[in-house]
This record gives sequence, structure tokens and C-alpha cells, in this order.
Amino acid sequence: MTDKGLLLIISGFSGTGKGTVVNKLLTDFDDSYAVSVSATTRDPREGERDGVDYFFKTTEEFELMIENNELIEHACYVKNYYGTPRKFVEDKLDEGKNVILEIEIQGALDVKKLYPDCVLIFLLPPDVPELERRLKGRGSESDSVVKERLYRAVVEVEFAYKYDYLVINDDLDKCCKEIDTIVSAEKLNTKRNTVFIDNIEKELKGTFA
Amino acid sequence: MTDKGLLLIISGFSGTGKGTVVNKLLTDFDDSYAVSVSATTRDPREGERDGVDYFFKTTEEFELMIENNELIEHACYVKNYYGTPRKFVEDKLDEGKNVILEIEIQGALDVKKLYPDCVLIFLLPPDVPELERRLKGRGSESDSVVKERLYRAVVEVEFAYKYDYLVINDDLDKCCKEIDTIVSAEKLNTKRNTVFIDNIEKELKGTFA
Repeated sequence: MTDKGLLLIISGFSGTGKGTVVNKLLTDFDDSYAVSVSATTRDPREGERDGVDYFFKTTEEFELMIENNELIEHACYVKNYYGTPRKFVEDKLDEGKNVILEIEIQGALDVKKLYPDCVLIFLLPPDVPELERRLKGRGSESDSVVKERLYRAVVEVEFAYKYDYLVINDDLDKCCKEIDTIVSAEKLNTKRNTVFIDNIEKELKGTFA
Repeated sequence: MTDKGLLLIISGFSGTGKGTVVNKLLTDFDDSYAVSVSATTRDPREGERDGVDYFFKTTEEFELMIENNELIEHACYVKNYYGTPRKFVEDKLDEGKNVILEIEIQGALDVKKLYPDCVLIFLLPPDVPELERRLKGRGSESDSVVKERLYRAVVEVEFAYKYDYLVINDDLDKCCKEIDTIVSAEKLNTKRNTVFIDNIEKELKGTFA
């Protein structure tokens, strides 16, 4: 069946552990995954490297990328642009990698319109008390920030229905295996493999020619 | 995620090894699969047991089952009725089993209308020469029967596009694992798990009540 890479979008509330899941997919699954590196106009934080954590851009550079259709989605948060460069994604897909985009809901739904074959996974916490514990456990977050993140989750949860799959991040190993199972199954989806039917059809008709 | 059983339909040309695949799924996957036993009006062949291989019925009994809506699909081949009894399927699904129907294309598409959540898998041979070898390898089939089966495949292949997944039966182990992967992934499909979103939504709203 198809050996093309799959475009995989992972979204979820702040605190569901998206970053940890993505890192584990990258390290545990034999090089079959690649993560898309976002472009942003925000300042680099300590230790962040250009081209690895983000492509750091000026506002002018970013707006030129928008104009030149070099981004498959972009959005503005807290006065900074964030976006997904098209070339990186398409190059990795061509190499046969499954490309992960860890992006916000609106961006995810925009990408689905452009790439209808992409797969949307919504990561859920096991329950809300656990989500609160994880948000508070970060230490650096004040109570009001935690409250704000939970409030944002109330808005975001409505969009989970639009995702293709739901995965609960309770046991990290299980969660990553489930995502990989989804990817393996999706590669057997008829819409990605019509060429196999076409070929068998031609061969069958050939036997009666 | 959902622990409900999945209704799984496996179709494919004569000679793709559907029966062998189904038997392996039943024996290799810890009791998680059950196969639907068809009802038929044809005479039992030597060794076939009522309730195991088929439910053997008279034409009158079969037509009464149709009338009473006790079959989820039925069809007539070579002057005999074949059909899928509803009660057996629904009982097994309630027990949490993945119920396999190994049925013809028209029946499969009929079942999909009644049970939109069922999953349709089309089994393909690796190529047409191998299909011919398997059909001839049965020994008992004359050249004209092989030709007739291949001709039927030409008609059937058009319907493969309507199936959800394609699986090639080249290596039997790999083929069965792929089917099981599809079943595992389908159980994470959002449409089967909206209750998890509903619950998280209620819990989240509860934190702001």
C-alpha cells in the first residue's frame, strides 16, 4: 500500500502534553516521523535555535511569506505571527515521512481544507482534575493563568468533534502507540490507494483482451 | 475509548483467501473477533454443521425471516438464499466482540446503509497472475470456472472504490495484523467516541459553575 508520508495534525488543550507526545513519536518510531518547524515573529527564548525550534522571522519577512503563499496556515497570537512553512512540510512528505503539525484548532481546520487527506487527532487529558494538576504542575503558572487556560479549553472542546480521531494522553507509551496505529491504518484507507484498484482492474481486463 | 464491538465486513474476489484470513483472525486475536454465521437454503455439504458453518433453513423458513426483518441483508445465488441473521450479530456486538461478515459486495453496501458505523474492508490479491494461480490451485475448478471467476472479478473490482480500506493478502500474518490495526484505529475514531468529548465538556464547564 501507499508509502507516501501522511500529514498528521495534533491539537489539544494546553496541558495535555502535546509536546511530549510529539517528541516521543520522533524518537521511538524509527525515523518515520518528522515534525514541522513553525515560523514566528516572536523573540527567541533562551536556548531556542533558529530552524530547529522555530524559523525566527521579522514581521516584514513573515508578511512576505504570507504574500508569496509560502505558509499553509498562519495565525496571530499575543501580537505575534505563527505559521507553517509549506516547503518544509511538502519536502518531508515527499521523502515518505509522516509530518506532524502541532497546531491550534483554527490552523488545523484551515490545513484540512487545503490538504483534505491530512489526519486530525485531538489529544484529550484523562479527565479535568488531571488537566488542572498538569497545568498547576508547571509551577510557573499563576492561578489566573491556569483559570484562563481552562476557560480556553471550554471554547476549544467544541471543535474536538471536527477532528478525525480522539486519543487520551494518560499513559504516554499507549498514547503514542495509538497515534502510530492510526497512521498505519490510514495508510490502508482506500482513498490513498486507488492506484492499486486501478492496476488490478487493468490486469484483470488484460486477461480478457 | 469505546469498548463496543465493531462490525467489520470483509469482501474480495473468489480466490483472495477471505476464509483463511477470517479463520486466522478468530484464532490469533484473543477472542476479540466473532464471525457471523449466515443463514442459507442450500443443502449442507459433507461435514457442515448447522449453527456453525451455516444456519440451514427451508425456503419457507428463510422467507419468514425476511418478512420478520430478522436478516440485515440477504441475496439469492444459484437459486438459493443466503442472509445474515440480525440477532446473532447484535448479540455479539453487545458482548464487545468485533463481528466479521464475510459477504458479497451488494450485501456489504446494504449493511453499510443500515449500520453506517460498520467498516468495509476489500481484500485484494497481490496481482492477477497470483489470483489465477490460487483459483487453479484449488484443483477442483475447471478452466471455464476459473475464467468465470476472473470475469466476475472484473465486475466486482469497480466496487472496491466504495470500501473504506484495502488490504492485500500476500503474507497472511501481515494481512491479519493490518486488519486488526484498522479495527484498533477505528475504535479511536471521533464518531465512535463523542461521549468522551461530552464528558470532558461537562467537567470543564463544571469548573466554572
